[in-house]
Amino acid sequence: MTNHQRKSRNLPPGTLRAPADAQCPKTIHAFRYNAEQCEEGEFASVAEAVAWGRGKGVLWLNINGLGNVDYLQELNRELGFHPLALEDTLHNAQRPKVDVYEGHIYIVVRMFRYQNHRLEREQLSLFLADGVLVTVQEREGDCLDSVRHRLREGAGQVRSRPADYLLYSLLDAVVDSYFPLLEEAGEEIERLQERVLVETGRATLSRIHDMRRELLDLRRGIWPLRDALGTMLRDGETGISPQTQIYLRDCHDHAMRALDMTETYRELAASLMDIYLSCASNRMNEVMKVLTIISTIFIPLTFIAGVYGMNFEHMPELQWRWSYAGVWGLMLLCTLTMVAYFHRKGWLGGSDT
Amino acid sequence: MTNHQRKSRNLPPGTLRAPADAQCPKTIHAFRYNAEQCEEGEFASVAEAVAWGRGKGVLWLNINGLGNVDYLQELNRELGFHPLALEDTLHNAQRPKVDVYEGHIYIVVRMFRYQNHRLEREQLSLFLADGVLVTVQEREGDCLDSVRHRLREGAGQVRSRPADYLLYSLLDAVVDSYFPLLEEAGEEIERLQERVLVETGRATLSRIHDMRRELLDLRRGIWPLRDALGTMLRDGETGISPQTQIYLRDCHDHAMRALDMTETYRELAASLMDIYLSCASNRMNEVMKVLTIISTIFIPLTFIAGVYGMNFEHMPELQWRWSYAGVWGLMLLCTLTMVAYFHRKGWLGGSDT
Amino acid sequence: MTNHQRKSRNLPPGTLRAPADAQCPKTIHAFRYNAEQCEEGEFASVAEAVAWGRGKGVLWLNINGLGNVDYLQELNRELGFHPLALEDTLHNAQRPKVDVYEGHIYIVVRMFRYQNHRLEREQLSLFLADGVLVTVQEREGDCLDSVRHRLREGAGQVRSRPADYLLYSLLDAVVDSYFPLLEEAGEEIERLQERVLVETGRATLSRIHDMRRELLDLRRGIWPLRDALGTMLRDGETGISPQTQIYLRDCHDHAMRALDMTETYRELAASLMDIYLSCASNRMNEVMKVLTIISTIFIPLTFIAGVYGMNFEHMPELQWRWSYAGVWGLMLLCTLTMVAYFHRKGWLGGSDT
Amino acid sequence: MTNHQRKSRNLPPGTLRAPADAQCPKTIHAFRYNAEQCEEGEFASVAEAVAWGRGKGVLWLNINGLGNVDYLQELNRELGFHPLALEDTLHNAQRPKVDVYEGHIYIVVRMFRYQNHRLEREQLSLFLADGVLVTVQEREGDCLDSVRHRLREGAGQVRSRPADYLLYSLLDAVVDSYFPLLEEAGEEIERLQERVLVETGRATLSRIHDMRRELLDLRRGIWPLRDALGTMLRDGETGISPQTQIYLRDCHDHAMRALDMTETYRELAASLMDIYLSCASNRMNEVMKVLTIISTIFIPLTFIAGVYGMNFEHMPELQWRWSYAGVWGLMLLCTLTMVAYFHRKGWLGGSDT
Amino acid sequence: MTNHQRKSRNLPPGTLRAPADAQCPKTIHAFRYNAEQCEEGEFASVAEAVAWGRGKGVLWLNINGLGNVDYLQELNRELGFHPLALEDTLHNAQRPKVDVYEGHIYIVVRMFRYQNHRLEREQLSLFLADGVLVTVQEREGDCLDSVRHRLREGAGQVRSRPADYLLYSLLDAVVDSYFPLLEEAGEEIERLQERVLVETGRATLSRIHDMRRELLDLRRGIWPLRDALGTMLRDGETGISPQTQIYLRDCHDHAMRALDMTETYRELAASLMDIYLSCASNRMNEVMKVLTIISTIFIPLTFIAGVYGMNFEHMPELQWRWSYAGVWGLMLLCTLTMVAYFHRKGWLGGSDT
Repeated sequence: MTNHQRKSRNLPPGTLRAPADAQCPKTIHAFRYNAEQCEEGEFASVAEAVAWGRGKGVLWLNINGLGNVDYLQELNRELGFHPLALEDTLHNAQRPKVDVYEGHIYIVVRMFRYQNHRLEREQLSLFLADGVLVTVQEREGDCLDSVRHRLREGAGQVRSRPADYLLYSLLDAVVDSYFPLLEEAGEEIERLQERVLVETGRATLSRIHDMRRELLDLRRGIWPLRDALGTMLRDGETGISPQTQIYLRDCHDHAMRALDMTETYRELAASLMDIYLSCASNRMNEVMKVLTIISTIFIPLTFIAGVYGMNFEHMPELQWRWSYAGVWGLMLLCTLTMVAYFHRKGWLGGSDT
Repeated sequence: MTNHQRKSRNLPPGTLRAPADAQCPKTIHAFRYNAEQCEEGEFASVAEAVAWGRGKGVLWLNINGLGNVDYLQELNRELGFHPLALEDTLHNAQRPKVDVYEGHIYIVVRMFRYQNHRLEREQLSLFLADGVLVTVQEREGDCLDSVRHRLREGAGQVRSRPADYLLYSLLDAVVDSYFPLLEEAGEEIERLQERVLVETGRATLSRIHDMRRELLDLRRGIWPLRDALGTMLRDGETGISPQTQIYLRDCHDHAMRALDMTETYRELAASLMDIYLSCASNRMNEVMKVLTIISTIFIPLTFIAGVYGMNFEHMPELQWRWSYAGVWGLMLLCTLTMVAYFHRKGWLGGSDT
Repeated sequence: MTNHQRKSRNLPPGTLRAPADAQCPKTIHAFRYNAEQCEEGEFASVAEAVAWGRGKGVLWLNINGLGNVDYLQELNRELGFHPLALEDTLHNAQRPKVDVYEGHIYIVVRMFRYQNHRLEREQLSLFLADGVLVTVQEREGDCLDSVRHRLREGAGQVRSRPADYLLYSLLDAVVDSYFPLLEEAGEEIERLQERVLVETGRATLSRIHDMRRELLDLRRGIWPLRDALGTMLRDGETGISPQTQIYLRDCHDHAMRALDMTETYRELAASLMDIYLSCASNRMNEVMKVLTIISTIFIPLTFIAGVYGMNFEHMPELQWRWSYAGVWGLMLLCTLTMVAYFHRKGWLGGSDT
Repeated sequence: MTNHQRKSRNLPPGTLRAPADAQCPKTIHAFRYNAEQCEEGEFASVAEAVAWGRGKGVLWLNINGLGNVDYLQELNRELGFHPLALEDTLHNAQRPKVDVYEGHIYIVVRMFRYQNHRLEREQLSLFLADGVLVTVQEREGDCLDSVRHRLREGAGQVRSRPADYLLYSLLDAVVDSYFPLLEEAGEEIERLQERVLVETGRATLSRIHDMRRELLDLRRGIWPLRDALGTMLRDGETGISPQTQIYLRDCHDHAMRALDMTETYRELAASLMDIYLSCASNRMNEVMKVLTIISTIFIPLTFIAGVYGMNFEHMPELQWRWSYAGVWGLMLLCTLTMVAYFHRKGWLGGSDT
Repeated sequence: MTNHQRKSRNLPPGTLRAPADAQCPKTIHAFRYNAEQCEEGEFASVAEAVAWGRGKGVLWLNINGLGNVDYLQELNRELGFHPLALEDTLHNAQRPKVDVYEGHIYIVVRMFRYQNHRLEREQLSLFLADGVLVTVQEREGDCLDSVRHRLREGAGQVRSRPADYLLYSLLDAVVDSYFPLLEEAGEEIERLQERVLVETGRATLSRIHDMRRELLDLRRGIWPLRDALGTMLRDGETGISPQTQIYLRDCHDHAMRALDMTETYRELAASLMDIYLSCASNRMNEVMKVLTIISTIFIPLTFIAGVYGMNFEHMPELQWRWSYAGVWGLMLLCTLTMVAYFHRKGWLGGSDT
């Protein structure tokens, strides 16, 4: 079911085989636009879409799901995308990266979303060739609607710019989608800090561990993405125009900021574990104090009572008139001494200590 | 309310939209100065201020608050500042950085101050174009008054130098404002060290965690600033004159020193947590010792008393003349043995152990 | 028995001596292939195999076992492989690396497999000379069958490409074989996380430590391999053709991904140890609470009973009519007070707290 | 009182103002020497000293104390030292560094010494111009007497070499002065390791924390010094002659060694904290065992005695002839069983366990 | 007694003074060899040895002990070795390094051996000049006998190669001597892992700390050695011939492997400390459970017995026929309830939990 169990062993590199549980897309969504207009369509094959859109401004093809290997093979035939890049598209645990092939570049990034209280990860593959951008996702639903909206409305510069600006816009939308997750994580950490001080259930412990795992997951998505964006800024071979590079630099800054936040939250989550241990230790201390106070007060008293419960024939105190009252007095004195001692130690200071 | 919830999803990059809760400035503060004189004014628009001050030495415009987007749009129209830089100005969680645009450079730094016992952060954006410096802050009140004072008094070299020296002066004032905070943090850590040795309340624990969070925050502000300053020193493109670079190098040294201090305090704060745990463990040990001493002394005595409280008919000791005194002797012996044992173990050594 | 005890002290570098417990291969397995056909054979000596296969496309010789030093000496004589490389082949704890010698390159990688619940490591040495690839393994059985299958079936491009593509195919098969192990480790960590929350045996503790050791082992195998692959990509001297480099880059990406996973699992395993300690502390807390609740309820009651077990002659309560019932009432009150106190403290909240 | 509270806010960079509590030197100490002779003198002003010594071989001026700003202003007037360098001289918390100015280089290093059991730090500023070396210290007393001695005695090469060799000699004396401190720290760590195993007072805990703080302090002094020395070795601009660079390389090696030792001791000090916690945990264990052994032996015995202290009319055992002896036998059996159990558990193994 | 106390303060750099407790060698051991023959001799002075051996192939001089400063001065006079290098030779705590001087290179490495269960370190200085190799050790006895043996026997290539190959052979012998120590450390860590699970004496704790200290020591020896070897590989100035560089690269690989092992063992040793703490915590838990089980079973029973030991006149139960048996029944019920509760909690699961 996982990536590598799916990858059967006897296949040569570049073989395209759909993952077993992949969504199988029936159509390809296409945008074609230039500064004047923007049209959309659904096509049954890559060839049709390319025929419809190529050469008329910028063409953006989007494929939702990895189940239809025909589409990927068409991408190779029609647009010349490299089989290795297409194979990476199908294996959904790629490290974010940018690969330069002859005639096109291939970029992988990770999108994240919370689903059923778990951080779900989805791989987004982007192919940029001359005037054509192809995106392949694992599932319906993504964080790219803002870009689609801008294309339809003609807002911003996206329609009047070449395909690499569209690439930037999509990458920017992906990076921006990390921030709500990180802010969510930041707030969760604040909540956990409150909680950890007042209760110590296994649920809290498990939650901190999950938080750490999720932050590691995010970091594994953002760290290499930052590097890939840095490569696109520095490296002349990726074919990004200088105008778009100014924008990509902004996107790179955002990715660095997201990484900063991730690292900060990881440190804070690790610090939470320390607090958890300290609080557990405090609580134990409190339990021990109650036991100790009760025991040290009553054990001597019980001993005194035990002494006068002995059955010796010759115990002169037993016959004395005031000895019963005297014993009570002795016990009271004993108790007061102990209470004074505990008070001086500060052990009676309430549950906060 | 936070940065990215404010950033609505459907806007293209470079769109200027004020944050919801931003202060809305009514005027722009302007300085114009040269070696001979220095004048100040308040203007209702950027255009007026630029008309008043441009070409007459150096012009410094300061905008207090992000609420008035018109001002930023004017900055684009009048001074040609890049929309991306202006957009970053409005999003108040930028990573400190320096961006080179055509005709101007854009710098973001973070100012910190304590407000209601919390470390508040404010973003300061600086634009340096030919002969004009523009600063945009989030709020009234900053750490730049020393520079204003020097401009008014003509103290130092600032009036006789070009705009990049003013830029340096402002950056230097910001970096210098970190040191009192760091010294405060250093003293707080010393205080916490004292406190952690004598009490273990949740308040202390919470304070240590907050300290770590604040130091992480400072680090996130200083680390990239140091890198940005380093870039300005190395990179010929930023257009900083060699005369000013000597001063910037000094500022860079200060930033490195601030970073050194931050890292040192972070290590010490982490070490405090260890001490906290150790002290909690020591205190528990002490509680356990009291319980153990009392219990191990009295439990055997109570047993002896219990034995002679049994009601067997044939217990010859009960009738003996001196057996009651003998039992007291036995108990005393028992107690002394135990006390000697504890003494040898060093458990009676007082509360310091 | 270990590597360096085997290496006797008085031998000059480049001396070939088989490890004491090495498998001694009787034959050499050989493939010779070109785009049209692929033949296999078993040969008794390197010379025969080379005579049979050289110059007829690509020749792949595989030696299973380090026990037959004659074969290695023949490799030196027949193919000119450097004595230092051959010596490294025999010492089975090499760091993965790539060494460029005149006329051939030498690569060492590590293969891993689980055997009897322990991670076993096997060294694979690869020599690439013009048109000839030689592999030397420690034992029968490896992760390279998928490549053999492709050679036999003529699947993929491997038959129509030069020897460096075969090298890539083998390296790729090795790197791919890490993923099932890593996925296994990831699942083991999830299982351990479950287990650590509910039980604290030494077995769990030992398992976490072993897990950390195994992940360190994997990391020691993957980290330098990634560097070696990076060297082969950058370094012109290794003689890898640009066509194959595109594939090697893919393999390099996989190695980086494997390394990422290893690092993530190492962090999670370290975090598990924290959870273990926290859970142990929780459990102790629970034990202490039971003791404390029982003790603090019964110790005062026992004291009361002890008081009325005293044998003083003048204890008026003893003669009163309802004092026995009254004592029971007092005890009940005492108990209820305690239970209420514990309830308020939340100590009666069940085993989850 | 600290550095930045002293630095008043309204001063431009390069303003010289003495720290409030600085020693105020009355004279300047001067050496002038060449291969033949060496003379010393005390002068009231820099101008006099320069007039006396310049051009007659090498001139070394030493100023003890930061209180006399006139001297620093003279350094600017007479020798052309840069105001920023002079300002750094007055602010006594500089990071060790080397700054190249036109006509001179400026070096800051830190000297350390133990005073009243605290690690005191003193800043030493060195200015190297053509044939003149100026040093400024915070206080009387330093680690440079060995160099003065060699100058007076004409020992070694210092008198026959140019001023940069004197600079090297002083830096070497400073770096060498770190080693006794580090060796002291190493021995203290050994002592603490002994102590931590046998006692757990707060004093030990506090001492470990102080040790970590001091090592961090040393590291903050040595780390940037090593970098500064590295810069002087690599960078042609500092004007150090190749002959002297060979010596500086040696000094650089020593600084790296000092840094190595600091890092090692930091790791060991961190490990001591772990040991402290483990030992505290061991001691607690021991206390608990004593309590448990005493309690588990006597609580059942007390119960038995309690049973036969009951006052039921129909308790046949009470009348039996040997039941008292039998009860003692039962108690003995009970005790032996428990002792055997504890023995098997290994809990009676003495205080070492 | 330590290095820097020995180094008296008033000496200029390059002064040669023997350490106080140094072995004083009486003779110098010399090898002279070429491909045909190899002769050995003992000489009273460097001059004699050089006269005997120079120009007749390769000459290797070995000095055992730092006590005879005359020898070192002769090395300066006869062979032109730099005073700084000779001074470093006498100070026996050098960081491993390679220094290039005019006409010779100077290399320092560390040899380690176990002596009385402590890791002893010895400094080996190597000087390589044209056709002459000089080694200076602190003591008799080293790990270089395999090289001597090969020289005498003419095994391997060492006799037919120039002096830099001898240098390589010696460095290789030193690096190889680290592996048995590291394997020893690895086995010790395995033994400690076993031990830590079953006992918690201070000895174990102390041993883990010592292990960490020793590994740090080894790392301080190996890390800079690896860098020095890397320098010799890259840097053209060291004058190592390309033929020998191939061998040095192998030696460099071994040093990296040794470093890898050191790092791995350091991580495992740190993990052992975690296990130690966890086990101590487990053991405490077990002790607490025994106490809790015994206490919670017997405390209620003792209370019941106490109740019927009261001396009230009106306690109807005391006269009933079956009440004694009934009380026993009640006690049994009570005990069974408790045992069932503990069983359900899993506290009776034996010593493994």
